[in-house]
Amino acid sequence: MSGFAAVDVIRTKRDGGVLSDEQIDWVVDAYTRGVVADEQMSALAMAILLRGMRPAEVARWTAAMIASGERLDLSGISRPTVDKHSTGGVGDKITLPLTPLVAACGAAVPQLSGRGLGHTGGTLDKLESIPGWRATLSNDEFVAQLAKLGAVICAAGERLAPADRKLYALRDVTGTVEAIPLIASSIMSKKIAEGTGALVLDVKVGSGAFMKSPEDARELAHTMVELGGAHGVRTVALLTDMSTPLGLAVGNAVEVTESVEVLAGGGPADIVELTLALAREMLDAAGLPDADPARALSDGRAMDVWRAMVAAQGGDPDAPAPVAPEVEIVRADRDGYLAAVDAYGIGLAAWRLGAGRARKEDPVSAAAGVVLRRRPGDRVRAGDALYELRADDAGRIAAARATAEAAVSVSPDPPAVPPLVIGRIG
Amino acid sequence: MSGFAAVDVIRTKRDGGVLSDEQIDWVVDAYTRGVVADEQMSALAMAILLRGMRPAEVARWTAAMIASGERLDLSGISRPTVDKHSTGGVGDKITLPLTPLVAACGAAVPQLSGRGLGHTGGTLDKLESIPGWRATLSNDEFVAQLAKLGAVICAAGERLAPADRKLYALRDVTGTVEAIPLIASSIMSKKIAEGTGALVLDVKVGSGAFMKSPEDARELAHTMVELGGAHGVRTVALLTDMSTPLGLAVGNAVEVTESVEVLAGGGPADIVELTLALAREMLDAAGLPDADPARALSDGRAMDVWRAMVAAQGGDPDAPAPVAPEVEIVRADRDGYLAAVDAYGIGLAAWRLGAGRARKEDPVSAAAGVVLRRRPGDRVRAGDALYELRADDAGRIAAARATAEAAVSVSPDPPAVPPLVIGRIG
Repeated sequence: MSGFAAVDVIRTKRDGGVLSDEQIDWVVDAYTRGVVADEQMSALAMAILLRGMRPAEVARWTAAMIASGERLDLSGISRPTVDKHSTGGVGDKITLPLTPLVAACGAAVPQLSGRGLGHTGGTLDKLESIPGWRATLSNDEFVAQLAKLGAVICAAGERLAPADRKLYALRDVTGTVEAIPLIASSIMSKKIAEGTGALVLDVKVGSGAFMKSPEDARELAHTMVELGGAHGVRTVALLTDMSTPLGLAVGNAVEVTESVEVLAGGGPADIVELTLALAREMLDAAGLPDADPARALSDGRAMDVWRAMVAAQGGDPDAPAPVAPEVEIVRADRDGYLAAVDAYGIGLAAWRLGAGRARKEDPVSAAAGVVLRRRPGDRVRAGDALYELRADDAGRIAAARATAEAAVSVSPDPPAVPPLVIGRIG
Repeated sequence: MSGFAAVDVIRTKRDGGVLSDEQIDWVVDAYTRGVVADEQMSALAMAILLRGMRPAEVARWTAAMIASGERLDLSGISRPTVDKHSTGGVGDKITLPLTPLVAACGAAVPQLSGRGLGHTGGTLDKLESIPGWRATLSNDEFVAQLAKLGAVICAAGERLAPADRKLYALRDVTGTVEAIPLIASSIMSKKIAEGTGALVLDVKVGSGAFMKSPEDARELAHTMVELGGAHGVRTVALLTDMSTPLGLAVGNAVEVTESVEVLAGGGPADIVELTLALAREMLDAAGLPDADPARALSDGRAMDVWRAMVAAQGGDPDAPAPVAPEVEIVRADRDGYLAAVDAYGIGLAAWRLGAGRARKEDPVSAAAGVVLRRRPGDRVRAGDALYELRADDAGRIAAARATAEAAVSVSPDPPAVPPLVIGRIG
């Protein structure tokens, strides 16, 4: 009879109806157990994408995904816990400097992360470019490191929201990723299950983000902030620009290097600005409004936590970054201003260079990526280096070059550079 | 890379776009070969259901489904070929008397049929209640019987539109049956592939039909008539009422018995009316406008073809109908008129009695079903028999009784009985 019930649930949403609590609980649980088939869930996901969900439906769906697995208990951690989640962008390495920085200011950051798929990079892929570093910790190791250092970045365990794990893989191959109710419940089910007490969301808007329009990003942010509140997680969202890559480096090791520059008190201005803005929100949400993250960056405390955090997971913080055997420098063909660096195009170029993966099983290159030598708005002369393409073999550079060239332009007039933080919700 | 391409096709339709010829050809072929997965096709089917398809898309989709298998060649048959297809109703046994009747008038009827699923019966299930009758013929047997008798009813071969076979099974479990472009292409791909020269469609409207509204039925009929024309099959559609079951018998053997009564010159008036209306359309479409089907019924020629047709496939036309061991007669509890006999409710009751199946693999009962003892509009007195419930065991009668009772009502005033033939398209 299960097939009948699944068809009834699908038909309800297909015809624009509201799923009942019982329907949601049943379909999420039955899908996790394999009673509802992939082809039934994908039809339901498409119906949800095209028909939408009411707030109460999203809340129940999220609760059902949390209930599909375990919820970590961080009540034994003496510091206030607070996490950050970005909806994903190009060059978005903010988690790397931010986690040790917020820990250095007195909070505990239980950052469960993912690997990259498509044109956006994954935090674990970046950290794995550090020799020896391991992403997988047991629950006990995770809690012990969090208690000791206040900072952990590691892979989410298999038992955390398994319904989401299965559903995400399905959405990825069925054209149903871009449903706001499903994006919101996917993110929030994992973050609520990880046990954090507070959460700051970095909702990206622009060509390099899933949300191309501010309206969609705002709707997603509102939905997630409400979901957090309903589950007792104090949640705030910043809407930030993702029309241009963050910083100068897009790849894996190159982003670690840039993050270490920020922790050393330098680094690109936009990375520093966003890291501090998110740190302040996190510390506020954690009940530590008097902490001074700018100082923790400049006096080296954040760097100390970074080194301890990397070492605790087997990584060598002093290991030299891997060097790409193939590097091509692309230069300006005219005088003018660097007018546009399109985040999606640069993300795609980095992916073609080997920094990202097409399928979950694929390996990524540690050294590959795009490194900008100029920022939008910079004045350039014909012959100036604009950016480097780095890869493990020359074929990949050839495959990525046209994509990168289409993403970067030089114009006679200086461009308008949009603000980085667009809005705040929560 | 195939996963990527499938997602692109899904996204195109999801976002309201028009699928290109290349996309349609690729996705139908790749799905048939198992390169596009079930969960991808079900997401696409849901997007088609909710976004619709333009006529050119439906035409190409149909052509791709035909191209997925073989197309029978009936050019060696000397008589004009013409077939009929009903979109499915309750008590719809019209194919049984109609096929031999039209053959008796000089045409050849290559009727490839299916089994029932859900509340509507299947022609093959009905004929299989005749001892010895077999549904499966080779292509050679099919063509030889058609040439000799002008009448074959048998199962469609595995090689006929295999894409449709696979897609239909998928739609059935994913809530995507009710998409007009997919219904039209499913029906027409099979009928065009079977090689008939002309086709008459009986598009059902009402509670017992897939199309509940005349508007939807008309749209489906128009779509199919156009598809037939585009493939050189002269196609006409009648829209007919399916708010009430056709005839008095709903089941398998009980419908064969009623069909034989019609072939013997008797039978319920509505069955005779619809059989003759469809026969006239078929003979017109086959270029035999002067044939007289009423006479072929009354003079026994149609019955002769029926007996030869049943015998040619191993059936005994003189075998007594199987008798249900359990029969319950339901009587009127008041005086009045039989006001409503709801087709969907009676279909569901017959299904619960064992005449239909929940899953493709399930067997059906030959003897089970509902037999009406009165027609809507008939005057009844308290205590009069209204209908019989027949089944192989008493538990099934108990399970069906409330459904049947809810479908039948007696009122003080005579009801308005709607016309049987509502419209004609073509």
